[in-house]
Amino acid sequence: MSPSKETISNWFKELQDEICLKLEVLESSAKFKEDLWFRAGGGGGRTRILLGENIEKGGVNFSAVHGKLPEGAIKSLGVEGADFYATGVSIVLHPHNPYVPIIHMNVRYFEMDSNTWWFGGGIDLSPHYVNIEDAGFFHRGLREVCNKHSITYYSKFKKWADDYFYIPHRKETRGVGGIFFDRLSAELSFTKEGRWAFVKDVGKLFCDLYLELNKRNHNKEYSSHEKQWQYLRRSRYAEFNLVWDRGTKFGLHTGGRTESILMSLPPQANWVYDHQVSSESEEANTLAHLKKEVDWCTIDIIK
Amino acid sequence: MSPSKETISNWFKELQDEICLKLEVLESSAKFKEDLWFRAGGGGGRTRILLGENIEKGGVNFSAVHGKLPEGAIKSLGVEGADFYATGVSIVLHPHNPYVPIIHMNVRYFEMDSNTWWFGGGIDLSPHYVNIEDAGFFHRGLREVCNKHSITYYSKFKKWADDYFYIPHRKETRGVGGIFFDRLSAELSFTKEGRWAFVKDVGKLFCDLYLELNKRNHNKEYSSHEKQWQYLRRSRYAEFNLVWDRGTKFGLHTGGRTESILMSLPPQANWVYDHQVSSESEEANTLAHLKKEVDWCTIDIIK
Repeated sequence: MSPSKETISNWFKELQDEICLKLEVLESSAKFKEDLWFRAGGGGGRTRILLGENIEKGGVNFSAVHGKLPEGAIKSLGVEGADFYATGVSIVLHPHNPYVPIIHMNVRYFEMDSNTWWFGGGIDLSPHYVNIEDAGFFHRGLREVCNKHSITYYSKFKKWADDYFYIPHRKETRGVGGIFFDRLSAELSFTKEGRWAFVKDVGKLFCDLYLELNKRNHNKEYSSHEKQWQYLRRSRYAEFNLVWDRGTKFGLHTGGRTESILMSLPPQANWVYDHQVSSESEEANTLAHLKKEVDWCTIDIIK
Repeated sequence: MSPSKETISNWFKELQDEICLKLEVLESSAKFKEDLWFRAGGGGGRTRILLGENIEKGGVNFSAVHGKLPEGAIKSLGVEGADFYATGVSIVLHPHNPYVPIIHMNVRYFEMDSNTWWFGGGIDLSPHYVNIEDAGFFHRGLREVCNKHSITYYSKFKKWADDYFYIPHRKETRGVGGIFFDRLSAELSFTKEGRWAFVKDVGKLFCDLYLELNKRNHNKEYSSHEKQWQYLRRSRYAEFNLVWDRGTKFGLHTGGRTESILMSLPPQANWVYDHQVSSESEEANTLAHLKKEVDWCTIDIIK
């Protein structure tokens, strides 16, 4: 059975609930704070923010909006017609410990009519300090889920993430990438049911990957040197999101809910003019790895 | 005599020197650090950064670049031809004390050939705490210089700044505005000499305004409460520059020198989800004043 928009939206809502519960386990007492919001044109969302000891600032957002598509959106999406329905879950977690990576996940569904619909989403990782074992674990997890659905998915969506999360003005990637996909509709042997099964698996994978990466790193000791570096990496994260991220730009330019969109921004970011790293430092090692086309699935195995 | 691009560029270079010397007087020992840079396509610049006790992070940049105009630039500027010359001085100062405003100044000249050239620029003020006497002093200073050149300048350029420095996704202005102008060429009774005389006066005005505002406020006492508010206001400044500022976008998208362009970003910025101010607080008073169309020249007089 082809999933309806209500089925998809309800599943996303449950995914948000489940992820929030699992993330709260990382905290001794901090809980998500929820804001319900309603969109003048139709629909709304549940924005949930966690300010914890482990996760310094995290957002896990669900939304389901519908109505007439804004003029600018019709143009930029290249669609005809005016009524739309869009639902999804978006997550960005900024951890306290600089050795824990920033993670971003998004699953979304867009529909104009029974023939015009698509899924999009992805998971990507932005370590303040690149750890190739962690990056390998992360990418192999993504590959395994992709391969369950299509042998073409991982390499295609991994490259898509490399290209999407690139910061041209810094000539570096935002992190070690992951997978990114958009406009997945029915074509060739891909059905709506098949695309939906894949998107659900991506959503379910998120906690498996992040909780493991968090467990591996959140007790590592660090000094103010590593924290300062984290603030610098976070400013690159802010640059990417504000200058290049199409989702953020689209939201801010079409009157989306600003506080929900910008929950992705770090709690604190520092800009230092022309910052230089010491050669052979962990920071230099990280910069050397912020490249496209790294084969993360094997980098730590062939080492 | 109509000024040549060399005359204009040399004057801008001297303006940079003069402003740097005057700003260094604010510091007990900190000095500007200079980076010379060269552009592959032609020209280059002198980026000067000050990290001081009074000015936490300040940039005073001069550049003069020339060559073939990038394809994207030809489109966005709506010009024909391919050779260009562009020179200017850009300043952004982020003070330590939250009661001292952030200030931005820019004077620039662009030329394609003897018939296609224009001046642009402006000065605008972004107080962390709006002080209407300071804003009145600032705007009256701008008005006086504008009126020396044309009785139409101040109201036109003040409105231009209101519109330019507006943050749509926050529904607030970046600060209390100032003047902004672009594409000033020869038309009606305005000559190149006349436009140039005006731009020089704007450049010379900068220190008169800023040094007075700095003197009035830099010794005011503040606590961590005011400093936290400053970090929040700086994150709005970063949002404006990265999302909306056409100059920043143009530079980052056409391969400008990233570190020189992004010297405008604050040393530290904080994002707090859905931050609320107490009613009747100084912070609420500031937000109430971040509006277009405020008559700053008389607001403190009629009070």
